[in-house]
Amino acid sequence: MREGVFISIEGGEGAGKSTQISALAAYLRARGIDVVLTREPGGTEGAEAIRNLLLGGADDRWGKAGEALLFAAARSDHVEKLIKPALAAGKWVISDRYVDSSRAYQGASLGLGDADIMTLHAIGSGGLLPQRTLVLDLPPDVAAQRLQQRDAGVSDRIGGRSSEFHAKVRAAFLQIAEQEQERVRIINADETAESVTQSLVAELSGLLPE
Amino acid sequence: MREGVFISIEGGEGAGKSTQISALAAYLRARGIDVVLTREPGGTEGAEAIRNLLLGGADDRWGKAGEALLFAAARSDHVEKLIKPALAAGKWVISDRYVDSSRAYQGASLGLGDADIMTLHAIGSGGLLPQRTLVLDLPPDVAAQRLQQRDAGVSDRIGGRSSEFHAKVRAAFLQIAEQEQERVRIINADETAESVTQSLVAELSGLLPE
Repeated sequence: MREGVFISIEGGEGAGKSTQISALAAYLRARGIDVVLTREPGGTEGAEAIRNLLLGGADDRWGKAGEALLFAAARSDHVEKLIKPALAAGKWVISDRYVDSSRAYQGASLGLGDADIMTLHAIGSGGLLPQRTLVLDLPPDVAAQRLQQRDAGVSDRIGGRSSEFHAKVRAAFLQIAEQEQERVRIINADETAESVTQSLVAELSGLLPE
Repeated sequence: MREGVFISIEGGEGAGKSTQISALAAYLRARGIDVVLTREPGGTEGAEAIRNLLLGGADDRWGKAGEALLFAAARSDHVEKLIKPALAAGKWVISDRYVDSSRAYQGASLGLGDADIMTLHAIGSGGLLPQRTLVLDLPPDVAAQRLQQRDAGVSDRIGGRSSEFHAKVRAAFLQIAEQEQERVRIINADETAESVTQSLVAELSGLLPE
């Protein structure tokens, strides 16, 4: 059986990841592709339990290293029990966030450093990377506007951090894309939902079946 | 203020760690030393939450890398929020298990390897090591006998593993002691409790105040 394709969708809060993942899955399923949708942190029973530890409580609940280790532990479970088996069964896996979020949030914005994040990823998940990573990018003022339109209580422990923190997250995603142009593509998310979906699909060329 | 002293007590199940830690603390307190007793995984609110994830459920609940990452995350919280502040305040910290347990259980017995465990420890806890580590050592048949005398349901997810697993744990502790003779001391735990306590105290020479 042909191995499946692993896609991750990245971006800050308010970039429209959930909407776009649904639209992308619908597009792929209409072409007969068996798609598994998942998310990080989470996706398996163990990883969802770790998610609860990570996203609840006060902002200083975990130190930066502890936070990075918990994300890597959740990812290890997710890769071993969901992502690898699905890919081996020929399915496409679309994950709402993956290791590039750890690189942007804990590595760059919290300042742990990219090398440590990638070391944890190598130990925890054999360094598995997606075939393609699509980063939904928004100018900071547009992202802030969209978040204001959500309910006040919706942001979690990490999403609720300062605008300075989120500016660093955005810069980190842009830098990762610059360094890994074949895998990581920046998508302008400041367009209509339909237009953004078309951009995502265009960036999957070469991966889609003939 | 003079920095405190960090001691870890290691050993397999049934070796008498709890009894000996109480006796050692009583000895030190009688000499006017301010002692903090703690344990791993655990010791802080966050680390105890991770402990619940680690020690409950089926043996295959976590993969070996996930298990090692969770132990390192718990240790990171423990070091940052309890051990370092207590040492800075001049207290002695006695921890029931520390990184050598990760080396023996996940590194050696599960086969993750010692280098990866020490890398996780460097990232999570700055590689902090105790001034002295006392390993309570028992011949396997004596350890098995002692465990049989406990209630059947007392062993947790990791303690309940096979005798082959526990034999590897013991061999790993002996090897660590061989490699780090200044820090790590093997104590024959197949003696009366009073005699074992005397051996522990003897191994603290050079650390005790005049």
